[in-house]
Amino acid sequence: MKSEKDGRRLRFALIGGGPGSFIGSVHRIAAELDREIELVAGAFSSDNARSAEAGAVFRVDPARAYPDVATMLRAEAVRPDGIDFVTIATPNHHHLPAARAALEAGIAVMSDKPATATLEEARELADIVAGADVPYALTYTYSGYPLVREARARVADGAIGRVTKVIVEYPQGWLATATDSKQAAWRLDPKRAGPGGCIADIGVHAFHLAEFVTGLRVTQLLADLGSVVPGRALDDDCQLLLRFENGARGALLASQIMIGERNGLRLRIHGDRGGIDWRQETPNMLVVHHSDGRTELVQAGDASLGADATARLRTPGGHPEGYLEAFANLYRDFAMLLRGGKAPLLPGIADGLRGMALIETAVHASRDESGWAPLIV
Amino acid sequence: MKSEKDGRRLRFALIGGGPGSFIGSVHRIAAELDREIELVAGAFSSDNARSAEAGAVFRVDPARAYPDVATMLRAEAVRPDGIDFVTIATPNHHHLPAARAALEAGIAVMSDKPATATLEEARELADIVAGADVPYALTYTYSGYPLVREARARVADGAIGRVTKVIVEYPQGWLATATDSKQAAWRLDPKRAGPGGCIADIGVHAFHLAEFVTGLRVTQLLADLGSVVPGRALDDDCQLLLRFENGARGALLASQIMIGERNGLRLRIHGDRGGIDWRQETPNMLVVHHSDGRTELVQAGDASLGADATARLRTPGGHPEGYLEAFANLYRDFAMLLRGGKAPLLPGIADGLRGMALIETAVHASRDESGWAPLIV
Amino acid sequence: MKSEKDGRRLRFALIGGGPGSFIGSVHRIAAELDREIELVAGAFSSDNARSAEAGAVFRVDPARAYPDVATMLRAEAVRPDGIDFVTIATPNHHHLPAARAALEAGIAVMSDKPATATLEEARELADIVAGADVPYALTYTYSGYPLVREARARVADGAIGRVTKVIVEYPQGWLATATDSKQAAWRLDPKRAGPGGCIADIGVHAFHLAEFVTGLRVTQLLADLGSVVPGRALDDDCQLLLRFENGARGALLASQIMIGERNGLRLRIHGDRGGIDWRQETPNMLVVHHSDGRTELVQAGDASLGADATARLRTPGGHPEGYLEAFANLYRDFAMLLRGGKAPLLPGIADGLRGMALIETAVHASRDESGWAPLIV
Amino acid sequence: MKSEKDGRRLRFALIGGGPGSFIGSVHRIAAELDREIELVAGAFSSDNARSAEAGAVFRVDPARAYPDVATMLRAEAVRPDGIDFVTIATPNHHHLPAARAALEAGIAVMSDKPATATLEEARELADIVAGADVPYALTYTYSGYPLVREARARVADGAIGRVTKVIVEYPQGWLATATDSKQAAWRLDPKRAGPGGCIADIGVHAFHLAEFVTGLRVTQLLADLGSVVPGRALDDDCQLLLRFENGARGALLASQIMIGERNGLRLRIHGDRGGIDWRQETPNMLVVHHSDGRTELVQAGDASLGADATARLRTPGGHPEGYLEAFANLYRDFAMLLRGGKAPLLPGIADGLRGMALIETAVHASRDESGWAPLIV
Repeated sequence: MKSEKDGRRLRFALIGGGPGSFIGSVHRIAAELDREIELVAGAFSSDNARSAEAGAVFRVDPARAYPDVATMLRAEAVRPDGIDFVTIATPNHHHLPAARAALEAGIAVMSDKPATATLEEARELADIVAGADVPYALTYTYSGYPLVREARARVADGAIGRVTKVIVEYPQGWLATATDSKQAAWRLDPKRAGPGGCIADIGVHAFHLAEFVTGLRVTQLLADLGSVVPGRALDDDCQLLLRFENGARGALLASQIMIGERNGLRLRIHGDRGGIDWRQETPNMLVVHHSDGRTELVQAGDASLGADATARLRTPGGHPEGYLEAFANLYRDFAMLLRGGKAPLLPGIADGLRGMALIETAVHASRDESGWAPLIV
Repeated sequence: MKSEKDGRRLRFALIGGGPGSFIGSVHRIAAELDREIELVAGAFSSDNARSAEAGAVFRVDPARAYPDVATMLRAEAVRPDGIDFVTIATPNHHHLPAARAALEAGIAVMSDKPATATLEEARELADIVAGADVPYALTYTYSGYPLVREARARVADGAIGRVTKVIVEYPQGWLATATDSKQAAWRLDPKRAGPGGCIADIGVHAFHLAEFVTGLRVTQLLADLGSVVPGRALDDDCQLLLRFENGARGALLASQIMIGERNGLRLRIHGDRGGIDWRQETPNMLVVHHSDGRTELVQAGDASLGADATARLRTPGGHPEGYLEAFANLYRDFAMLLRGGKAPLLPGIADGLRGMALIETAVHASRDESGWAPLIV
Repeated sequence: MKSEKDGRRLRFALIGGGPGSFIGSVHRIAAELDREIELVAGAFSSDNARSAEAGAVFRVDPARAYPDVATMLRAEAVRPDGIDFVTIATPNHHHLPAARAALEAGIAVMSDKPATATLEEARELADIVAGADVPYALTYTYSGYPLVREARARVADGAIGRVTKVIVEYPQGWLATATDSKQAAWRLDPKRAGPGGCIADIGVHAFHLAEFVTGLRVTQLLADLGSVVPGRALDDDCQLLLRFENGARGALLASQIMIGERNGLRLRIHGDRGGIDWRQETPNMLVVHHSDGRTELVQAGDASLGADATARLRTPGGHPEGYLEAFANLYRDFAMLLRGGKAPLLPGIADGLRGMALIETAVHASRDESGWAPLIV
Repeated sequence: MKSEKDGRRLRFALIGGGPGSFIGSVHRIAAELDREIELVAGAFSSDNARSAEAGAVFRVDPARAYPDVATMLRAEAVRPDGIDFVTIATPNHHHLPAARAALEAGIAVMSDKPATATLEEARELADIVAGADVPYALTYTYSGYPLVREARARVADGAIGRVTKVIVEYPQGWLATATDSKQAAWRLDPKRAGPGGCIADIGVHAFHLAEFVTGLRVTQLLADLGSVVPGRALDDDCQLLLRFENGARGALLASQIMIGERNGLRLRIHGDRGGIDWRQETPNMLVVHHSDGRTELVQAGDASLGADATARLRTPGGHPEGYLEAFANLYRDFAMLLRGGKAPLLPGIADGLRGMALIETAVHASRDESGWAPLIV
C-alpha cells in the first residue's frame, strides 16, 4: 500500500517530557534512532514557559512548543507538515485525556505505560481506541529487546516444551529511603499515579514481559504489596504468586526498596523440555537450558538467532546495544504500523488493559488478604 | 575443661550411607577433613551384605560394619575405642528411631535434615534431646559456608540496617522428568520422606538459611506447592511468601523441576541501610550493597572478613573452597561441642523443629488455600 | 563565543557508508543521537548508483547524494545550508585523500581509525591538520564509554597510585576461517588496509585505550604478529609486550581468530595502590581494586562517578547504554569543538599518528624479530 | 596385581609443613580426602621443637615427628607400619636433597613444584628417578581439576580442531607491596627459591597447565620478567610470548603485583574449529566455543562430561568442589600408581624438567633481551 508517508520521516510531538523528565528525552532518542521519525513539536509542560524551555532544549521550532495538548492538536492539524502522532510521556493521570484528545483528532498515539491511572479509565480508553482510525501503542520497553524477542520466538517454537514455571523479578533500590525528587513524587501520589505504586511503575513491566515471552495469560494471582518506607500512600514492594492459563505456576517479585539494585528485571521460564533466562542489565545474552542438560549462552549477533531478533540489532555481535535501542525497536514497529504495515509484537491497548487489571487486582487482593484472586480484564 | 577426648580424634559411625548413597560419603569426607574425627563403624544398610560392602568401601574394620543400629550401639558400648557419636544419613523416616536409640544409649547425634519425617516426630525428638546428656546437631550444610557466616555477622552488626526484604531461592532441575533413581524414589514417597517433597528436601535448607543469616524468625507464610510432573504424591515445586517477626516481607522459591538449574541456592537480604547477596554455586563471594550505593565484592581471604569466617577457611583467598569444606565446618563445630566447647551457630533441634513446622504448615496451607498461615512450632 | 551554529543542528556528510557498510550507519546514529548534528549529504560510494541508493536509505535529499568527494565539497560550499563537517568511513587508503580534500576546503573532519593507511601518510595528514582552520578528530570509539572516562579520571587522580602493569586484550573470532565478505576483504588487503591487518583494525583501538586511560605513552614494544589462516597477506593475530614511559610493563593481545569471541576488548591497569578492570561487552561497570584489598563494582549511575562520566550517560543506572551511545559521546565532543568549545579527551591527529606508528613498528619488529623496538612517531 | 597395600590405607610422611606453612596442611587434607592415604609421620621442620609442635597439630604419633629426613627414613624403614611415601612441602632448595634421600631409601616421593631449585638439580633428580624403583610425582595442582581434565580430553578429541592460540594468565596481588611474611620471604630469596620468583612460583603452574591441556610442547619463548617492587632480587611479574611445537602462538602472563587479584589462573585455548576457556576461581565450569559460533557452559555434573572428569568429582552438579578436591585428585592418581596401577595424567619428573627449563630459559632470555629463545630441556 502506497502512502504519502513513504518518502519521508514521520513527525511526532511529545506530550510531557519537560525539564526534569527522564523519559521525554528517551522517547526522543528512541523515536529518531532509525531516522524513520522526527520530533517536530510538543506540549512539553502545562507551564507555558517550561514548555518553551523544553522545546529549545529539544531544538524544536519555537512556534511548535505549545502550552497545552488542545492547542497543539488544533495548530498541527492545519500545517501541511503537521504531526503524524503524539507520544504521551506524562504522569499516569494525564494518559487518558491526552490519548483521547489525540485519537479524537485522528492523531495516532504512542503512550507510556501503564495505559491509564485506573482500570476504569483503561476500559474507556479501549473503547476510544476501538473506534479510532489510527494506531495506539504502549511502550512496554523491555519487549523491544532483541533477545527478548528471541526468547519469545524460541518458547513459541517449543524449544522449552510446555511452560511449567515462570519467575520474573524486578528489583530496584532508588526508593529505599524517603525522597522528594520529581520522579519519586508523582509515582507515590495516588492522585497522579493511580492506586498502584511499585506494582504500577515496574510490576506491570514484569507482568507484560512474562506474558509476552510465554505467550500465556495469567489467570489468577496471590498478592502481597507493602509500603516499606513509612508514610507512603502507595506500595513500594510487591510479591505475587501467579497462575497461568495452562496451569503453570509463577512468581513476580518487584521492589523499589532493595538498595544496590538498579534495574534488575530478570525473567526465567522453564518448561518440561528446557528453560531460558534473560536479564535486562546484560540484555544481549540469553541463557538457554536444553533438555539434555546442556547450557547455552545465546548472544546478540549469533548465527542461531531468529530473523526477528536479528532484524532488531543494529551492530555486529559484541557491540553492546541497550535500553535506548530496545526502546527504538518499539518505535520502529510503530512506524511500520503508521506506514500501513504490521507490527504484531508491538504492545497495544489490550496489553494496557491487562496491565491495569493486574494493578487493581493486586492492590485489592493484597489489601483484603483474600487469597487467590482471578485476573479479569 | 579437660577430657580424655582431647588427645585423640573423635570416633563416629554412619547410620545409612550404603551403596548408592551420595550423602554418606559426603559425611565421611566432611567429618574427617580436619582430622578431628574419624569414621570407625557403621550400620550402613538394613541389608547385612550391603552394610558389609559399604564398610569395605569406607575401609572400616569389617567387624564394625553392623547389620543394624541396635547391634551397633550394643557392640560399640563395650569397646574401649567405641564411637563418640553417630551420623544419621538415612531417608527421613529413619531419623527419629535412629536418633532415639543413639541418644538413649548416651551417644551423640549428627543428623541429616529434616530432623524427622513429621512435625509430631520432631516434637518427640525434641523431648528426647532435652533429656539427653549428649549433643544433637543437624546438618543444615549451607550455614557452614564461611561467607554465609560472614553475612550473618554483618547483618547482626547492623551493616544493612533493619531488615526489610528477604528473597531466598533454591532452584534445581534434577526432578524435572519422571525418574526412578534411588535418590529420587524415597524423596517422593510420603512413607519415607514425610508429607513434603521439594519443601522438605530443599525448601527447609532455604528457610533455615534465611533465618540463620537474618537472625529473624518467620512468623507467617503463604504457600503454593505443586506437583508439576504428573503422578507425584509429593510437591516438586514450591513458592512461599513470608513474613518475618520484625515485619519484613520475604519470598522463598524452591523447585526441583527447573531444567538446567543445578543447586542454585541464593539468598538476598535487604535492609534500610544496605543489602547482601550470596550464591551457593559461587560460595566464596558476597555481594554487599552499601547505603551510599556502592557495591562491594567481598571474597574469601579478604582482610575485611570477620574472625568467624576467616577461621572457617582453610586456604588463602582465590583457592576455591566448596560444599565439602562447608559441610566440614559443621563437623568442626560439632567436634568442639563434643570436646566440651561451644558452637552457638551449629544447627540443633530447635532449628529442626522450625524446619518441620515449615514443612507441615506449608503443605497444609497450600492444600487448603487458606491464605496467610501462622508458623507455629 | 557566539556562533551562527549555536541555534541549529550541525550538518554533516558521510564519505563512505554505502550499501553493505556497517560503520556508516553507526556514524549516522551516533552523530544524530543528541540532536546536535544531522546527516544531510554524502559521497557514500564511488559508484554513483550505489551512492544514490545509500542516500535514499539514509533519507538524505537525493540532490545531496554525490558521486564523489570533490563534487560534494564544491556543491555544499555554495549552499546556504551546506555541511559543517564530513565523516570519513571508508577503507583506510581513502582516509588521507578524503581528509585532505575536506580540510583544504575548510570543512572539519571526523575520521574512522586508523588515521591513514601508512605512517608516512599520517605524517602528511598531520601537517595538513596543523595548517587547517577547522577541527580534525578520530573515532577511537571506546574512549567514549562513560566508564572508560571514569577509569581515566580515577587513574589521573591517583586512585591506583603509580601505574605498574597494563594488560589490554581485544579478542575477536570473525576472521577465524577464510571468508570473502566485504568487511573482511578490504581489511586483509594491503592495498586498502595498509601494512597492518588485525593490528590496524583492532590493535590500535586497544593501544589507544591503554594510553588514554593510563595517561602514559608506550615507548618500546616487542611484537609477534601472525597470519594464522593460510594465505593471508596481513596479520590476523597479534601479541605485543609493551613498555610505558614510566617504566610500567604491559601486554597487548589482539586477535581475530579466536572463535567464539565477539568484541572482547578488556583493559586492566594496576598500580602500586590499586587496580581497575573494564570490559567493553559489559561497559557500564568498572571493577576497582583498592589498596586495602577491597573490590568495588562501580556502575553507571552510581553517585561515586565523576562529573565527566555522569555527563556522558543518558539514562539512569541500570538502563544499559552501549556502543552507539559511546560513539555518540565522541560526536558530542566534536560538536562542542565545532561550536567553539573544548573537548580535551576527543582523539585527534596526535593519537592518529601514534596509532600509525604502532602499526608500522609492530609490523616491522615482528617481521625482523628484532627484539624491543622503540615506538617513534 | 595383588599387593599387601590393597587392603589398607597408604601411609605417608610430610617433609616440611611446619608451623606457618600453608601448603603442608593442604597436602594432608588432599592426601586423606579419599581415605586412600593417611598421614602418619613427618619431618615438619628442621627445628626439632617446631617439628614436634607441628606433629601435635596434625595429631601424629609424637614418636613419628622427626627432627630431620634422614632420621625419619631410618626409623620408618624398620617399622612394620612404616611409611609408603613422603610428600616434600619445603622451599625449593630442599626439594632435591629430600627427594634423593627418599628415593634412595626406596620410598616414593610426591613433591611440590617446581621440581628443584635449578635446572641442573632437576637433571640430577631425573637421573635418580630414572634409577628408582618407586614413583615420583609432582603437584601441579591445577591439572587435578575435573574440568581441566575435561578440557584436555576435549582438545585431544579434536573438539576445537588444530590449536592455533593459547593465552594463559595467572594474576595475583599478594606481593604488590614489600612484605616479609614467611611465605613471601623464601619465594623472593634466590638461595631458597632458585633463579626465578614469580616465574617459578606460579609461572610454572600456568606453563604446565597450557602444555597439559593442549597436549603440545612449547618450543620457543620471548620473556620479559621484572621486579616491580623495588629491592627484590627475583622477578614478581612476568610476560612471555610462546611458540608451540605445532606453530601455535601463545602468551603467558603471570604476576604477583596485581592488587585485587587473588589466584586468577585462566586458560584459553583456541583452534581452527572452536575454543575453550577455564578459570581456576570458578573451576567447575568450562566455556566451550563451537565452530558454528555457539557458546556452551559445560559444568561439573553435566551428562556431557567424559569419564575421566566425572570420576574425579565427589558430589553432584551444583555442589562446588575446589582447590582441595583438585589437589586430592592428584593424590588419588598417586595412590593408584603406588598400588600398581596407572596414572598417565599425573605430573612426573618429565614435567618437572620442563618447568625448570622454562624458569631458567625465561630468566636468561629476559635478562639478555635475546629475543626468541629455544626451550630446551
